[in-house]
Amino acid sequence: VAQGLVICDLSISLDGFIAGPDQSADQPLGIGGRRLHEWHFSPKNEVDRRFTHELLEPKGAVVMGRNMFGPIRGAWDGEWNGWWGGDPPYHAPVFVLTHHARDPEPMAGGTTFHFVTDGAASALAQAREAAGDKPVLVAGGAQTARQCLAAGAVDELVLHVVPAVLGSGERLFDDLGGLACEPLEACASPAATHIRYRVVGR
Amino acid sequence: VAQGLVICDLSISLDGFIAGPDQSADQPLGIGGRRLHEWHFSPKNEVDRRFTHELLEPKGAVVMGRNMFGPIRGAWDGEWNGWWGGDPPYHAPVFVLTHHARDPEPMAGGTTFHFVTDGAASALAQAREAAGDKPVLVAGGAQTARQCLAAGAVDELVLHVVPAVLGSGERLFDDLGGLACEPLEACASPAATHIRYRVVGR
Repeated sequence: VAQGLVICDLSISLDGFIAGPDQSADQPLGIGGRRLHEWHFSPKNEVDRRFTHELLEPKGAVVMGRNMFGPIRGAWDGEWNGWWGGDPPYHAPVFVLTHHARDPEPMAGGTTFHFVTDGAASALAQAREAAGDKPVLVAGGAQTARQCLAAGAVDELVLHVVPAVLGSGERLFDDLGGLACEPLEACASPAATHIRYRVVGR
Repeated sequence: VAQGLVICDLSISLDGFIAGPDQSADQPLGIGGRRLHEWHFSPKNEVDRRFTHELLEPKGAVVMGRNMFGPIRGAWDGEWNGWWGGDPPYHAPVFVLTHHARDPEPMAGGTTFHFVTDGAASALAQAREAAGDKPVLVAGGAQTARQCLAAGAVDELVLHVVPAVLGSGERLFDDLGGLACEPLEACASPAATHIRYRVVGR
């Protein structure tokens, strides 16, 4: 069976942060972090629209961290279904890395959240199997992306480099020394420089 | 009189370092830092050749830090003329930021090293005056580039983003929170993604 690519797609500041500091339920992207997503929240340019379309195109499966699923809480309350409302934009199985076991949550539009408590490698394996020959999206946050990159499990890293310096926040590349990539494509808009890398090793 | 652009042109790792750790006289670019310059030391690609040509094209004047001029020593010994040999590649006045006053050093090929002890703003002002309507190159290292960017004195920032993660070294963007740029152009080769930014403010 052909295997789909594992693609990690992230918006990042010029100085390497994928979220601002002080992430919270009120400010899930951290202070200044929303700025990193303007290029796809309100694309103003043909280049940004192309990458927005690619980001939102349904994948075979998605892997994300706990904080990307929903706000930081001590424990699940059994009611909350994440940031994404009743019809999340994934339209595919989403594997959420967490320490709290929970039954799968099927949502409208084909998204089902699965909760994985035994680590990134397991989440990736489950996502790969669910995706078949379609791509798997590693959606973030930083810790999840780092774990998948460190495990050598990512085929393509797509960075949307936003031309702003955040100064602090959550860095993507901490503890990934030695990671090597090959740029396949780069396009600039005023809002972001989009670079597609093939990950070639560590 | 028309003023030339002030251009800061730097090679940088995916994780934001422009030199590796442990810079020394033997290893001026730090551990792993030479990797950041392969794209122009031995350009293998039309895109890399174009940016190499642009980097080496004579400027009106150059500003650089002390460690980029020559190895780290306690004091000048009156003999050493930097890393660059008798015919440096600048062919223009070069203003070296240092704490040690020293007479100008004229070299073959039109390069003269001037030593500036009263700070980045002064070096930039002298470089601008020497350059007339030709561009001024801010060549590095990180501290000099940061000072010039922090002073709002840089018109264009050209980054050659090398697809490798160094893990440690000297970061370009520390203490530049709030800096904002606009991408004008992006081109990828296997060795580097070249991005030209207009610096729009802080």
